[in-house]
Amino acid sequence: MPLQSLADVRALLTQLPVPDQAALAGAEARNGQLTKPPGALGRLEKLAIWMAGWQGTDRPRAAKPQIVIFAGNHGVTAKGVSAFPAEVTVQMVANFAHGGAAINQLAKAFGAKLDVHALDLDRPTADFTEGPAMSEAEVVAALQKGFDAVDPAADVFVAGEMGIGNTTAAAAIATALYGGVGWAGRGTGVDDAGLQRKESAVAAGVELHKAQLSDPLQVLRCLGGREIAAMTGAILAARMARVPVILDGFIATAAAAVLEKAAPGALDHCVAGHQSAEGAHARLLEKLGKEPLLSLGLRLGEGSGAALAIGVVQGAVACHSGMATFAEAGVAAG
Amino acid sequence: MPLQSLADVRALLTQLPVPDQAALAGAEARNGQLTKPPGALGRLEKLAIWMAGWQGTDRPRAAKPQIVIFAGNHGVTAKGVSAFPAEVTVQMVANFAHGGAAINQLAKAFGAKLDVHALDLDRPTADFTEGPAMSEAEVVAALQKGFDAVDPAADVFVAGEMGIGNTTAAAAIATALYGGVGWAGRGTGVDDAGLQRKESAVAAGVELHKAQLSDPLQVLRCLGGREIAAMTGAILAARMARVPVILDGFIATAAAAVLEKAAPGALDHCVAGHQSAEGAHARLLEKLGKEPLLSLGLRLGEGSGAALAIGVVQGAVACHSGMATFAEAGVAAG
Repeated sequence: MPLQSLADVRALLTQLPVPDQAALAGAEARNGQLTKPPGALGRLEKLAIWMAGWQGTDRPRAAKPQIVIFAGNHGVTAKGVSAFPAEVTVQMVANFAHGGAAINQLAKAFGAKLDVHALDLDRPTADFTEGPAMSEAEVVAALQKGFDAVDPAADVFVAGEMGIGNTTAAAAIATALYGGVGWAGRGTGVDDAGLQRKESAVAAGVELHKAQLSDPLQVLRCLGGREIAAMTGAILAARMARVPVILDGFIATAAAAVLEKAAPGALDHCVAGHQSAEGAHARLLEKLGKEPLLSLGLRLGEGSGAALAIGVVQGAVACHSGMATFAEAGVAAG
Repeated sequence: MPLQSLADVRALLTQLPVPDQAALAGAEARNGQLTKPPGALGRLEKLAIWMAGWQGTDRPRAAKPQIVIFAGNHGVTAKGVSAFPAEVTVQMVANFAHGGAAINQLAKAFGAKLDVHALDLDRPTADFTEGPAMSEAEVVAALQKGFDAVDPAADVFVAGEMGIGNTTAAAAIATALYGGVGWAGRGTGVDDAGLQRKESAVAAGVELHKAQLSDPLQVLRCLGGREIAAMTGAILAARMARVPVILDGFIATAAAAVLEKAAPGALDHCVAGHQSAEGAHARLLEKLGKEPLLSLGLRLGEGSGAALAIGVVQGAVACHSGMATFAEAGVAAG
C-alpha cells in the first residue's frame, strides 16, 4: 500500500490486526493433547501457539521464511563512529549478491528466501548531529521500501540490516525513546576513543532534535537511517499481513521499538530471536518485554541472529503441527 | 567393536583420540579471514572450529546428523517415582516407530537420521534400592548396544532416551559421582510426595551400593539403566570415531558424566545442546564445565533439546564453511 506521509503510518498504527482467537484456542487445546508431559517442550509450546494465532491456524508452519536485508549509509560516519570505512556497506551488499556473507549461509541452512535492498547508498543520510538525518519525504520513501518488501505469503519474517555507522543511529533512537545514557556500544569493534565519539554524537543528536523527539516517527526521521526506517516499515507491513516476525539485534530492535513506542502492542507479532553481544540490546529487549530465544554472543547484524532463531521456530512448529495426540498414539496420558 | 567386560571399556578410555591439530589451526585461520568483524558470530565461531577439529577438516559439515534413542525400563518405578506408568515406555517406542513423537518432528526438521533401540523393555533393571540395577553382563550388553548404534559416517551425533523412572536413576548416578543432595527433580511432573519418594530412593540406592561407587562404571551398573548405559556406550563410540556429540538433557548428561569421571577429558568431543528445565541439569553441566547452546525450558528427553541444537550447529558450520573471505569478496577488512 502506498504511504504518502507519516500521517499514513500513524493511521495504520490505529488499525493493527490482532491474532486469531479461535486459532489460539485451537492450538492451545491441541498442545494439551500431544504425546509429551504437559509443558515438557518448554518455550517451544508457547512459540508454536503464538505462531498459530498470527497465522490463523491450529497447525502453524515455518516452511517459507523470508529474510530481507536493507542497507543504508550514514552521514554520522563523518564523526568517526565506526571501526570500518563507509565503503564497506556497498562492498557487503555485493557480498550478499554473490552469496558470500553469513546471512546467505544461514538463509540457505533454514530454507529462507533472502532479498537485499540497497537504499541510496551513494546518498548517505545527513549527519544527525548537524540536522535531521532525513526529510519527511526521505523517511516515508524508506518506510515504503520496507513496507513493500514483505511477502504476505511468508510464514515468518526477518528484517536485517547493513550500514556502517548504524549502531550509532540505533543508540540515538534508543536514547530518544527511552532516555538515559549508555546506549552506545562497541558495534563492529570500535576502541575506547571511538566509543566516546559515538556517545558524543548520540548526545549531540538528541540535544539538537529534542523539540521533536516526543514523536517516535520524528525520532526515526531525525536520528535514524534509511535501512532502519525500512525495517520499521517492513515490521509494520508484516503486522498488517499477520506474518510473525523474528527480531534481530540492536539495530533491528531499535527500528521495531519506534512502532511499540508509537502504539503499545504494535510488536505483539514479534519474538526476539537472539540477544546480541552489543551491550544495549539486552536493555532494549527488556524495555520491550521480549525474552530472546538465543543468546550466543552474535553481534553481526545482517539479520543473522534472527535467521539462526528460524531453526528454533521451525522446531517448535514441527513438534506442534506434526506430533501425534495421546489418543492417536495409544499412549497413556499419565 | 565387541566389548567383553567393563575392563574393555576401561581400556578404550585410555586410548581416546584427540582433535586434529592441523584442522583446528586451519579453521582458526579461515575464521579470521571471513567477511565479518572479528568475533561477530560469537559462539558460532568457536563451535565451527571445534567441529573442524573433530572432523579433521577446516570446512566442517553437519549435513548428516544421527539421532539415536535408547529405551529402557526401571525396577525403581516400583517405588512410585514417576508421574507416568511404566507401560508408557513401550507405548512411546511405538510412537517413535510411527513418527508421532516430538523427536520424529525435530529429526525431520533438521535432516537427521533417527534410530530407535528398545532394550529389553519386558525385563526392567532391578530396583536399585534393593540390589544392583544390572549385572556386569547386562551393563556390558547395554554399553555394546550403544557402541554399535553409532554411524561413524555421521557428522554430528545425538543420544536420547525414553524410560519411565530414568530421572531417578540419573539423579542417583549424579549423587554417586559428585556427592551432595538435591539431584532428584520433578522429571515428567511428579508432585511433592513423588519428589520425596525419588529423593528417598536415590538416598537408599547410594547407601546400599556405597562400597562400589568410587568406580564410575560401577555407578553406571549399580544405579543406571540399560538406556543410560547405551548412551554412555554411544558417546564413547562417537569419541573413538571422532564424531562430535551434542549432549541432551539431564539423563543423557548423567550417562556422559560417567565417562568424564572415569577419564577426565573424555567429553571433549561433546557440546551441551540445551539446559533442561529439570533442576539438576544446570548443576550437572557446571560440573562438566559445559555451557548449553540453548535454554528454552525443555524437559522432555528423547534427545529433543540436543536435536533442536542441531540447527545451531548447522548454522555455525554453514557460516564457517560457506562464507567468502575478505579477499574473495573484495571487502575492506577494517
